[in-house]
Amino acid sequence: MAARMKLKLKTVFVLYFMVSLMGLIYALMQLGQHCDCAEHDLPKDRAISRLQEELYRLQGQIRQLEKAKQPEKKQPPKSSLSTIFVITPTYARLVQKAELTRLSQTFLHVPQLHWILVEDSPRKTPLVSNFLMKSGLTYTHLNVPTAKERKLQEGDPSWLKPRGVEQRNEGLRWLREDRKTEPGDDGQQGVVYFADDDNTYSLQLFEEMRSTQRVSVWPVGLVGGMKFESPVVEGGKVVRFHTGWRPSRPFPMDMAGFAVSLRLVLANLDACFDGEAPMGFLESSLLKGLVTVDELEPKADNCTKVLVWHTRTEKPKMKREEALQVQGLGSDPAVEV
Amino acid sequence: MAARMKLKLKTVFVLYFMVSLMGLIYALMQLGQHCDCAEHDLPKDRAISRLQEELYRLQGQIRQLEKAKQPEKKQPPKSSLSTIFVITPTYARLVQKAELTRLSQTFLHVPQLHWILVEDSPRKTPLVSNFLMKSGLTYTHLNVPTAKERKLQEGDPSWLKPRGVEQRNEGLRWLREDRKTEPGDDGQQGVVYFADDDNTYSLQLFEEMRSTQRVSVWPVGLVGGMKFESPVVEGGKVVRFHTGWRPSRPFPMDMAGFAVSLRLVLANLDACFDGEAPMGFLESSLLKGLVTVDELEPKADNCTKVLVWHTRTEKPKMKREEALQVQGLGSDPAVEV
Repeated sequence: MAARMKLKLKTVFVLYFMVSLMGLIYALMQLGQHCDCAEHDLPKDRAISRLQEELYRLQGQIRQLEKAKQPEKKQPPKSSLSTIFVITPTYARLVQKAELTRLSQTFLHVPQLHWILVEDSPRKTPLVSNFLMKSGLTYTHLNVPTAKERKLQEGDPSWLKPRGVEQRNEGLRWLREDRKTEPGDDGQQGVVYFADDDNTYSLQLFEEMRSTQRVSVWPVGLVGGMKFESPVVEGGKVVRFHTGWRPSRPFPMDMAGFAVSLRLVLANLDACFDGEAPMGFLESSLLKGLVTVDELEPKADNCTKVLVWHTRTEKPKMKREEALQVQGLGSDPAVEV
Repeated sequence: MAARMKLKLKTVFVLYFMVSLMGLIYALMQLGQHCDCAEHDLPKDRAISRLQEELYRLQGQIRQLEKAKQPEKKQPPKSSLSTIFVITPTYARLVQKAELTRLSQTFLHVPQLHWILVEDSPRKTPLVSNFLMKSGLTYTHLNVPTAKERKLQEGDPSWLKPRGVEQRNEGLRWLREDRKTEPGDDGQQGVVYFADDDNTYSLQLFEEMRSTQRVSVWPVGLVGGMKFESPVVEGGKVVRFHTGWRPSRPFPMDMAGFAVSLRLVLANLDACFDGEAPMGFLESSLLKGLVTVDELEPKADNCTKVLVWHTRTEKPKMKREEALQVQGLGSDPAVEV
């Protein structure tokens, strides 16, 4: 009897031992694991997409009403929107936060926009990190420092070396990595645009580029010493380029003057910007690996409307600041500008 | 010996039982507990509130459009938000449309904003008229040319004569005329802000100024050769000014650094900008007729946050354009830039 009891007790203990061991292992696993907020996100994601749908509906209603007022205006049909991935290189300077502020205000108006902001810096700066966190935009924050020998030095003219090459390539690298994990039609649908942080973008520009099949093109205002540069369109095709300098370049266009379909970026893994390209050939170094002039898709009413401007912001003078700093009366460095 | 062994074994089992029970309890607690995603939520919450604001704006726009269709019907609903009247002087130049474009994108985010855009021109230009019509903003379009003797000439340094004086005064004149016909508390509630078309404005700035009782003030970034200029606040009062130049001026502040309540503008019909004021005294010429330094209301966390930047846009070079025009190959003048 006692022996049988002992045997049973032993079995009970062994069973209990195994069960509780599993409990312990589970608890330890929980400790090491970050909490997964993906499921928690769903209601908010749904709220966001419902709001966005409602926005599109109202935007449509407004277009209808405006069309009723101006019956000559065309109305583009809308279904599911492609995501626009905007790659923006940026670097620390006095006007950086101001530039990013107005740029973000533009992007906030554009539905389905994903901002890839790439700092020219060995690490992500608190200014940009905090700015993005508060921006209300969908974004990816990256950084890569420009190699020393490629970096513009204080006093160099801005055209001496192209700026933002490594950063744009880093944006492309991230996109290719990120989208690899989302195969199929949905994950690969989208448009890639390279938007510098000092240019000015109309909202219509983004709706023009959204339908890009391979590479779409349009005029850019106030660039290259010209009122505008532009592809010249005849019979719906780009036949040459209106530019003030070396029209013989493969793609004599500014960075702001074209967008590339995500599919094309993913299908041509080697296509990137060549930092060693001669001056004015940076855009060509990417595009020649993707498309021919014949295949370019003209937008903005056959390239007759200027919807983006190559504005440049003056470097602020700091003469009085420096004079006051010598006296110990400079602006409080704790205040972010 | 055997009894002692049993005793020890029992102790071991009891200890093990307690430890593993704690493990089990912990595991069960983990199962029942939601992970804390509050921090993770913030960007989505912001996205949601932005979308809601945008929805609200579009709904307002639809009401406007429907009201325009039925002009006989009166629209009674009034928001409880004070209207912000933004007076902006503007003048024709290459970057004008670009500047107005990004400025309008800022204003589109601000609820209850009424833009008073005043052209420095003997007549309203088609560029500005068309631009405003398509802007989606509530606006008033005015024009007044600067008297010849007061106008900056080509090549003059920009500080030689103040720009926009007559235009800002014309905005004030219109406001006083327009609001005269809307007496009572509702028609006189509002805030007046002078926003030049090349500065950069954060959206928070407008929420700061909305509660202005008399004259509210805050720092301005990148102005006057300084990282920022600012009122200095002690005990909630402005006690002096941080500026790089003549702090003895009555109100040593930039135009972008203050807002005035509409009530104060309407109660002081003579207060306006004096175009003959010495350099740097233009802001003072208006403010000294409205308020004392002691009465200024500091905003932006007691004037410790920079929410507006005195950015300046470079004048684009047109060298190549001019060279091509000589050959008859200039940019198509029919294309608006």
